[in-house]
Amino acid sequence: MPRRDTRSAIIDAAITLLGRDGPDGLSASTLAREVGVSKATLFHHFPSIDDIPLAAFDRLIEQMLDWPFTDDATTEDRIAQLGAMTFAAVETHRDFFNAYFVFFGKAMFDERLRTRFRQSIKTLLARMEDVFSDADDIDRKALARLVAIVLDGLALHLLALDDAHEVERAWKLFQRVVSKGTSNGSRS
Amino acid sequence: MPRRDTRSAIIDAAITLLGRDGPDGLSASTLAREVGVSKATLFHHFPSIDDIPLAAFDRLIEQMLDWPFTDDATTEDRIAQLGAMTFAAVETHRDFFNAYFVFFGKAMFDERLRTRFRQSIKTLLARMEDVFSDADDIDRKALARLVAIVLDGLALHLLALDDAHEVERAWKLFQRVVSKGTSNGSRS
Repeated sequence: MPRRDTRSAIIDAAITLLGRDGPDGLSASTLAREVGVSKATLFHHFPSIDDIPLAAFDRLIEQMLDWPFTDDATTEDRIAQLGAMTFAAVETHRDFFNAYFVFFGKAMFDERLRTRFRQSIKTLLARMEDVFSDADDIDRKALARLVAIVLDGLALHLLALDDAHEVERAWKLFQRVVSKGTSNGSRS
Repeated sequence: MPRRDTRSAIIDAAITLLGRDGPDGLSASTLAREVGVSKATLFHHFPSIDDIPLAAFDRLIEQMLDWPFTDDATTEDRIAQLGAMTFAAVETHRDFFNAYFVFFGKAMFDERLRTRFRQSIKTLLARMEDVFSDADDIDRKALARLVAIVLDGLALHLLALDDAHEVERAWKLFQRVVSKGTSNGSRS
């Protein structure tokens, strides 16, 4: 396999394994066996096993932000679409995201992983700002950040609790107040 | 020590140990030594070591919600106060909250812990609804949930990234849109 494909295959296998077996399901041996490569190949692509869940998380969020928003989509449309994608992503990858929190916590206690994590989240936040580059009469950077914060909190609640209906009501309220509370929220 | 005090002492020690040494710093032996009790006493109070970080998290959030909001505090005042307390709690207990995510992730893969976690979060959400019991002209339950979601996302961003200033801008935008977007947001 070419380098790029091997890296992708490792990430895909990690998403599968973490979703199936939880945080304890990810070891270098299991992962190497699942992908059909040697452990040396694995560590050629990733400095440590704990880097892999972080890379997998990036992949899933990037896929979400790669959504082809049409030029005439309003700020409200974009927010609604991002919310719908978050609900769908949590539904599809529930156990993976749960496992991810274990590695997120570990990464916060490891300076190298923490730096790597921050860089990748900053890239994702910049992509989020692009999504709102057309928003008028509002601090776009603050709006992009607020939407990211709400979506992260929303994902956390969907993962931890068993009341998606209540989370949806809160999400609808958020969309409504943003629409009414910003000057460009003329569609209501 | 009376039972109640021992339980409290165990929780306090867990907050200290997790904050100092991270998720790997919490073992039954270390914790028992820190509190000055036997491991048997520890397991008399908690069914498993993984229950302790969850109980510690509850304690910190309960302390936050026990804030004596005055009767004349508006919905905006209450939201502002909860935000200020979240910023302060993350600042003071940063490493504890990071460690907590490790246990949160683990708990999601353990049916008993997951059930226990859900019950305690539901209690906290009900307390959050009490904070907003005076909010008029708005779905109070949805508002309480939305504020909880935003504060959780906000804490996550404060823990993971190094840009509290940007998080504050997003938080101010949230307060502004809620104030403008709800009918009782007359103070501006």
